[in-house]
Amino acid sequence: MMETEQDRHRLGLAKLTEIVGVRKQQPLSDWQHIAPDMERYIVDFVAGDVLSRPGLDAKSRQLVTIASLAALNTAPVELKMHLHGALNLGWNRTEIVEALIQIAVFAGFPASLNALTVAKETFAEQETQDR
Amino acid sequence: MMETEQDRHRLGLAKLTEIVGVRKQQPLSDWQHIAPDMERYIVDFVAGDVLSRPGLDAKSRQLVTIASLAALNTAPVELKMHLHGALNLGWNRTEIVEALIQIAVFAGFPASLNALTVAKETFAEQETQDR
Amino acid sequence: MMETEQDRHRLGLAKLTEIVGVRKQQPLSDWQHIAPDMERYIVDFVAGDVLSRPGLDAKSRQLVTIASLAALNTAPVELKMHLHGALNLGWNRTEIVEALIQIAVFAGFPASLNALTVAKETFAEQETQDR
Amino acid sequence: MMETEQDRHRLGLAKLTEIVGVRKQQPLSDWQHIAPDMERYIVDFVAGDVLSRPGLDAKSRQLVTIASLAALNTAPVELKMHLHGALNLGWNRTEIVEALIQIAVFAGFPASLNALTVAKETFAEQETQDR
Amino acid sequence: MMETEQDRHRLGLAKLTEIVGVRKQQPLSDWQHIAPDMERYIVDFVAGDVLSRPGLDAKSRQLVTIASLAALNTAPVELKMHLHGALNLGWNRTEIVEALIQIAVFAGFPASLNALTVAKETFAEQETQDR
Amino acid sequence: MMETEQDRHRLGLAKLTEIVGVRKQQPLSDWQHIAPDMERYIVDFVAGDVLSRPGLDAKSRQLVTIASLAALNTAPVELKMHLHGALNLGWNRTEIVEALIQIAVFAGFPASLNALTVAKETFAEQETQDR
Repeated sequence: MMETEQDRHRLGLAKLTEIVGVRKQQPLSDWQHIAPDMERYIVDFVAGDVLSRPGLDAKSRQLVTIASLAALNTAPVELKMHLHGALNLGWNRTEIVEALIQIAVFAGFPASLNALTVAKETFAEQETQDR
Repeated sequence: MMETEQDRHRLGLAKLTEIVGVRKQQPLSDWQHIAPDMERYIVDFVAGDVLSRPGLDAKSRQLVTIASLAALNTAPVELKMHLHGALNLGWNRTEIVEALIQIAVFAGFPASLNALTVAKETFAEQETQDR
Repeated sequence: MMETEQDRHRLGLAKLTEIVGVRKQQPLSDWQHIAPDMERYIVDFVAGDVLSRPGLDAKSRQLVTIASLAALNTAPVELKMHLHGALNLGWNRTEIVEALIQIAVFAGFPASLNALTVAKETFAEQETQDR
Repeated sequence: MMETEQDRHRLGLAKLTEIVGVRKQQPLSDWQHIAPDMERYIVDFVAGDVLSRPGLDAKSRQLVTIASLAALNTAPVELKMHLHGALNLGWNRTEIVEALIQIAVFAGFPASLNALTVAKETFAEQETQDR
Repeated sequence: MMETEQDRHRLGLAKLTEIVGVRKQQPLSDWQHIAPDMERYIVDFVAGDVLSRPGLDAKSRQLVTIASLAALNTAPVELKMHLHGALNLGWNRTEIVEALIQIAVFAGFPASLNALTVAKETFAEQETQDR
Repeated sequence: MMETEQDRHRLGLAKLTEIVGVRKQQPLSDWQHIAPDMERYIVDFVAGDVLSRPGLDAKSRQLVTIASLAALNTAPVELKMHLHGALNLGWNRTEIVEALIQIAVFAGFPASLNALTVAKETFAEQETQDR
């Protein structure tokens, strides 16, 4: 394996841009001020190593992401980011809503309703952005 | 909505058969002895109402199912049943393994490794069945 | 079983009214805008099928509800709604507080303290309503 | 408050006997060999302080216990012990099954099915004991 | 064991002061208004019985506390209180950040990022206090 | 940052050996048969990137690991491996037991008792190994 750190980083940045788009003047998250290396791990490991793996297409991977975050029901900020990502990668609103309704079966109705509430906010943000 | 209880039940049975296949002489689960109505809810509500909804195809729904069960990391029996379902609905082994590796990012490495262990058992059961 | 969809819906609406009371001009939750069918499932399945089952009285069922929501520690909105329901169904404040203190044993002190904080808000809302 | 350590311990032992009954020649749990003080905390704090509190009757408290354990879906050993306790404190099998079915709504179907499986085993153990 | 209730309470208060310091004019938490006995359990059982046990030093215990709260990812209020405690007991900011980054491996990246966000707020509060 | 993939791998292998020791003829875990890349991520990312970071010593890191796994209460296999690691890195049995007792406060008694049961098994395995 001749892959280098730089390859992983470049691959990861491209993948993240594919998922969340290029957002200009994005303020730093609070955690970035005290744990800058976490950003490197998110780019290199999460996006570069894992989300860039062949064997499952990016659109399907994004469905895995939102399903697992919705089931956990403890990460509304990441869920919103990845719901934007799901729209960016080609899932439409109906499909996303359907996936989140289905969470009620496996993780309970509260997990599903919380995720749907985050989806409503996500869709509203997209409309504001689009103007 | 002119849907009747019978419609939901018929729809649910067809959907369950699509997911888990027709398994002959399947013994009753322990819970079926004391809570037979739960089987009705699984057929009518889970399979008939939710998993049969239009708006998201059955194959994609199955990915939502295995991702949420793997993230919860508390339901190995259901996960195995639905990993069989994922194979039945057209996901190949590589794709399933990829989805479960990805769980490490959002729910931690132990959740992913536990799910992969269940997947290994599932694949072995399929080989035994196929003979 | 001659039960129809309409029976389930009527039964469910009556049960929900018993739990949460008739609240006038209640604004739609965010999730209702994008997933109106979830409301139907809550009425027909959750309230009509499950919470209306004979075999356990409504007051005891409400204790099951608040105990499970408090233990999960991820659904403060639903917990508050169902704490109002516990008061409506005949549990007094002392009993509710006792149930939530007990959660510390099984789910840890933070889960209990979070639930008690929601209970404090619920009791304050009841006083405002009563005036 | 003139309560002494001895009062708490005596109160706790009486409460535990009320819940789990007197089981003769009960082998030590594995954890008791390395953490004997945990047994003291379970008697004095869990049973003596919390479960003996006035303000909520013992039978209702046991419903809180099994609902929270079933919702967590990570403690089958404790759940079984407390399902025995629920029978001892006057809940019948139908009521227990109903409580566990209801868990599906708030914590998902897998949590409910796992708890019902433990209940089936508990009921079978009672039959063996009764002979 | 000749320990009395008063010993436990005195021990617990000293331990809590060691962890969170003496904070003047601290307003009551919402839960304290409706469940004052929980404060007694936190002092006597949590701090007096458990956190005061010999066999593991206070500084190491505080690391156990913040690691478990961060992994659960459902208790930001308690996490912040105990991050202040970790600083009070001699862990420096770098060490705390390192512990919280490590949570990503076992509980997933969202749990780690949420905990780091709470840590950022905690560090900012300390700076305000120090002035 | 001139770090290469080979550096990460070498660093990770050394760290893993430090934690779990050299175990001869260790059979492959089930998941290794179907997801060999997960082993690479565990060596390179988990052990090489995260657990090898400066800023928190290896012994303290191992306490973070066992505390988070015990609190999650869903990973007994990983918990046992890392309890062996805690002994290898210099924590004694008393200290480990104390850390796991403390989990009862934050994640509930069942999580603590389950972890203590795994610890009992771990200590027994060490005695067998030492002979």
